[in-house]
Amino acid sequence: MSATQHTPLTQVAAYAAPAPKAPLERTTIARRAVGEHDVLIDIKYAGICHSDIHQATDGWGEGIYPMVPGHEIAGVVTEVGAGVTKFAVGDRVGVGCFVDSCRTCEHCLRGQEQFCSRGMTGTYNAIGRDGQPTYGGYSTHIVVDENYTVRIPDGLALDVAAPLLCAGITLYSPLRHWQAGPGKKVAIVGLGGLGHIGVKIANALGAEVTVLSQSLRKREDGLRLGAAHYYATSDESTFEELAGTFDLVVSTVSAPLALDAYLGLLKVDGALVNVGAPEEPVSLNLFSVIGGRKTIAGSMIGGIAETQEMLDFCAEHGLGAEIELIGADAINEAYDRVRSSDVRYRFVIDTSTI
Amino acid sequence: MSATQHTPLTQVAAYAAPAPKAPLERTTIARRAVGEHDVLIDIKYAGICHSDIHQATDGWGEGIYPMVPGHEIAGVVTEVGAGVTKFAVGDRVGVGCFVDSCRTCEHCLRGQEQFCSRGMTGTYNAIGRDGQPTYGGYSTHIVVDENYTVRIPDGLALDVAAPLLCAGITLYSPLRHWQAGPGKKVAIVGLGGLGHIGVKIANALGAEVTVLSQSLRKREDGLRLGAAHYYATSDESTFEELAGTFDLVVSTVSAPLALDAYLGLLKVDGALVNVGAPEEPVSLNLFSVIGGRKTIAGSMIGGIAETQEMLDFCAEHGLGAEIELIGADAINEAYDRVRSSDVRYRFVIDTSTI
Repeated sequence: MSATQHTPLTQVAAYAAPAPKAPLERTTIARRAVGEHDVLIDIKYAGICHSDIHQATDGWGEGIYPMVPGHEIAGVVTEVGAGVTKFAVGDRVGVGCFVDSCRTCEHCLRGQEQFCSRGMTGTYNAIGRDGQPTYGGYSTHIVVDENYTVRIPDGLALDVAAPLLCAGITLYSPLRHWQAGPGKKVAIVGLGGLGHIGVKIANALGAEVTVLSQSLRKREDGLRLGAAHYYATSDESTFEELAGTFDLVVSTVSAPLALDAYLGLLKVDGALVNVGAPEEPVSLNLFSVIGGRKTIAGSMIGGIAETQEMLDFCAEHGLGAEIELIGADAINEAYDRVRSSDVRYRFVIDTSTI
Repeated sequence: MSATQHTPLTQVAAYAAPAPKAPLERTTIARRAVGEHDVLIDIKYAGICHSDIHQATDGWGEGIYPMVPGHEIAGVVTEVGAGVTKFAVGDRVGVGCFVDSCRTCEHCLRGQEQFCSRGMTGTYNAIGRDGQPTYGGYSTHIVVDENYTVRIPDGLALDVAAPLLCAGITLYSPLRHWQAGPGKKVAIVGLGGLGHIGVKIANALGAEVTVLSQSLRKREDGLRLGAAHYYATSDESTFEELAGTFDLVVSTVSAPLALDAYLGLLKVDGALVNVGAPEEPVSLNLFSVIGGRKTIAGSMIGGIAETQEMLDFCAEHGLGAEIELIGADAINEAYDRVRSSDVRYRFVIDTSTI
């Protein structure tokens, strides 16, 4: 295809959850025609994010079915709209958690589209600005506005790049915002899909990285990925030994966190930043933040420009996700394994198998 | 007295709690002789801080009795040690929440003695570096190291300056740290001893100030003190109307705070800073901070240099506390009234009545 052909592509293959809690199955979905500012992407790989499972099973409610999950998308541009200036056919590109936003609010103008005042448009399980439901990356093709598409640098293989589009930016953004770097001690809580990329990025940023994991089971992996230290949080002495140690603790876990205990690990002016969270409220004694002017904060993915910055950073440092590549027919099994934390460290679907 | 006389002053009049929960009564206590780097202060006024009541009644445990509360001290220097360089006899000075610290840890060296790694020495209810208990400002005199003494500028009356030594710095420090100023919308939760000074300081810093109080009872006061807006938190519509409004919310209340509701009042990147806190844990849904990269933080008084900066700022802007001056024989009654929030806005003891 050339850049001037605007094939009104309609039906493409995908894996979808037909209804809440139903297993995913092969189907076909409609993709919109390539508009003036759109790129058509031949999806090569799609990561499986834990939130795919939450949404496919309607864990957060109000799911739109059939649902095609997937917001860790890596592929190649095969067609561009007439007005597209940023990408050309053959470019290696990625799509993350959102595919549109209002573009006019203060957050969009600041390049923080994830905080769009009118709400970003999710890559799937959302209604687009055109009123149609969006479908994600468990599919062979997707049409996305060039302004919500990022470039995957040549040095980065597409399969290990895919998870960076959500997991990578989810960790990169807070690590940069809270200034992880040389001279800083950073703890990553949980060594899973998010955490393992956090270890790599924090280490590449120059921080001294500690993994805080439930057990020492993955200790060798953690050290190999870039951690200088590895502690088990099931061992109470960890919290005594590491009291007052860290400038920054980034929690990637969705289990209820003993906030006061983790706040005790921070130095004065330290921050406990949550990128994972349980559905249920947790307990907090405010004196845990008062005594050392500490903060509890949250962070949610990142904007398009920062996502590009993250990909460039990862390419420069030779960082990709640790992945287990699967065929589309193994998606449901992979979901079960993610639920039981049995993955090192991210499942990635080879979308040629759909 | 001249600067060269080192009278070994021993017994001075004071009001003390003889035992936990016992009413305060007049007594005499020993003050140390004026050492080389000490100043002897003729206390003129002492503010009553809510924490005096907590401690006098042993609400936090491990109280040291007899206890002479008071860490909002304003007076005049009447004697100085031979090595004193910062103060002279006749200087108007203040003493706040601590009278010593290790002086060598990173926090002390940075001028944040309140975070001293070895623990600051409280102005009362503490054991000093000399092994003796410290006694606070409900007394006629106190001997303090010059490095833990601050100057009260001429433009500031001593009686309205006294509460600034704790309440003033408790609000000034976080308002500065979280950059309250022109273009910023700041909410102060609670219009009491802490909150009313927060309104004055935030307004003087140039922020647009909103008071969030349980009821509209003190609305006129709040507007007079510098608030642009005043809302009742007992009215649920307040939380809808003000959703996403503030850059900074400073909570001065010690009642359990509905954290998620207050976090909803913040803009993206906004901070909810607690300078008051309940003893009991509160409930927090971490998604309340994740969506807008919000923070919950705490702040605790300030260092000596920042306390001096605060007093200079208050003098420059003509700010003092709103006080109700009382004789020492009214201390117990004042405690009862503070407990029932019946004070506008700070009781200050005229220590000449002790």
